[in-house]
Amino acid sequence: MKVVSRSKVVYSFSLKNSPVEYVKPGELIMIETEDALGGQIRSENYLLEKIDWSMVNGATGPIFVEGAETGDTLAVDILDVKTADHGVIVVVPKNGVLSSKNFNASVKIVKIRDGFAIFDRVRVKTRPMIGTIGVSPEAGEIPTGSLGRHGGNMDVKKLTAGTRLYLPVFVEGALFAAGDIHALQADGELCVSSVEVAGEVLLRFSLIKNKTPEWPILETHDTFEILACGESLNEAAAIATESAVVALMREHGWSFEEAYMFGSIAVDLEINQAVDPKKGVRAVIPKEYITLNSLIK
Amino acid sequence: MKVVSRSKVVYSFSLKNSPVEYVKPGELIMIETEDALGGQIRSENYLLEKIDWSMVNGATGPIFVEGAETGDTLAVDILDVKTADHGVIVVVPKNGVLSSKNFNASVKIVKIRDGFAIFDRVRVKTRPMIGTIGVSPEAGEIPTGSLGRHGGNMDVKKLTAGTRLYLPVFVEGALFAAGDIHALQADGELCVSSVEVAGEVLLRFSLIKNKTPEWPILETHDTFEILACGESLNEAAAIATESAVVALMREHGWSFEEAYMFGSIAVDLEINQAVDPKKGVRAVIPKEYITLNSLIK
Repeated sequence: MKVVSRSKVVYSFSLKNSPVEYVKPGELIMIETEDALGGQIRSENYLLEKIDWSMVNGATGPIFVEGAETGDTLAVDILDVKTADHGVIVVVPKNGVLSSKNFNASVKIVKIRDGFAIFDRVRVKTRPMIGTIGVSPEAGEIPTGSLGRHGGNMDVKKLTAGTRLYLPVFVEGALFAAGDIHALQADGELCVSSVEVAGEVLLRFSLIKNKTPEWPILETHDTFEILACGESLNEAAAIATESAVVALMREHGWSFEEAYMFGSIAVDLEINQAVDPKKGVRAVIPKEYITLNSLIK
Repeated sequence: MKVVSRSKVVYSFSLKNSPVEYVKPGELIMIETEDALGGQIRSENYLLEKIDWSMVNGATGPIFVEGAETGDTLAVDILDVKTADHGVIVVVPKNGVLSSKNFNASVKIVKIRDGFAIFDRVRVKTRPMIGTIGVSPEAGEIPTGSLGRHGGNMDVKKLTAGTRLYLPVFVEGALFAAGDIHALQADGELCVSSVEVAGEVLLRFSLIKNKTPEWPILETHDTFEILACGESLNEAAAIATESAVVALMREHGWSFEEAYMFGSIAVDLEINQAVDPKKGVRAVIPKEYITLNSLIK
């Protein structure tokens, strides 16, 4: 099995980053990841002012997937997400959902034991997930801390072992990268960080040729979820809704109006990214009502 | 058991509405409700232009709860929500999450059979819930189609039989009203209406004296959920987050920074109201991490 070291880190999704590994569809690959703070914080006494922000939000990669071409879909099976035995949460002034309030920089080290994160005297069950995952855009550079049609820092708590992510391919080889593992995270990631942790992600890629999704699509056991984003949660909700309505029209032969109605009864709008400049809202469609074919074209 | 007829309808939460029934804490009361369109639509050929909008979004009530005084909490046990055997969904131009798109007025009658709503050839499991539920504000009138600290048109899909809602009491007797039953609804109620249906709601009130929540609080089997609202989803998310952080500080003796961090790992931000002028976001806190006492004071 190929293993990509966590030293192979990029801070943007871009064609300018040369591949650090080549894999074939169907091959297993293990990606080691550093925590989102670049491993810089090892103690609660760490002074956040000292942090080198250029080493934050890295992703391991990029990985060149053989056979991937513009207009394809890269399907990423998340087979396993392992974490280190401790992580770190930071509060950063002017950040998070409450960015307009006054508060202090703060650091907390969180131990991870037997599947629980220990926060003070409180134990919370872990659910290791991948915060940042994506591919290169057609041109330019997108910082790994941002999100978009290429994926990126979507912070979807359901992106765990056992799920599959469908990403559009914009460039030859896709140039995939991932990082920013959280031992657990709630929807919205209120304070801007969660339990940031180093980890290892076991993946397998496959390709769907000549078809591509409009937005990244998460497949869980019982849902397909359209991972949209916009300048505000309102805008992201509208974009996710429109994409879901179009997919339902394709699936059922419904008019716009019928698909819009059906959305009201069966498509949940859920928040993932509330703390980046771009906001992420997902449209969650139960598999009973949609097939993958209607989500990529 | 007292029964309030669906003919006892109001279109605002206000002191100006005289009580139509008086109940004691602990008494059972059945409220009949008309569908949110005032029962005006009985066929898919109905022309929406003809609708009398002054008869839309009614709530049955108000009900005077004996002993309720300003500064108390009214706890409402939702014991049962029954629906008629058919409902109606409408699409209204310039409404819903996609209000900026061009589309036509449209009406669909949805049959309800054996716990499923029949939408074309698709069957969707029902989950009867109360869209509008609240109390009178201290002064003035709040249309039943809006939402706020008094409750109102929150459209929380989890407000089903078996849950309990805590509302602040602003006036003597609380002046409770409820309506706008949906046979089922997804989070966000994308197109502005769901399966709008006449129904019967079985309730029991209780009072918590001299303590009041900042926002309505929903209690489910395993969560407390703060039902906040704001001018945008972003603002509503910030308001819900702040309320959750304050409650976690009270519960655990944490600093603001610690409670904010804990929010990132254990408090989900979820969308309920995305299609009213005011938007609703709830902060969902598992009961393991919070008690009611920290949510009302």
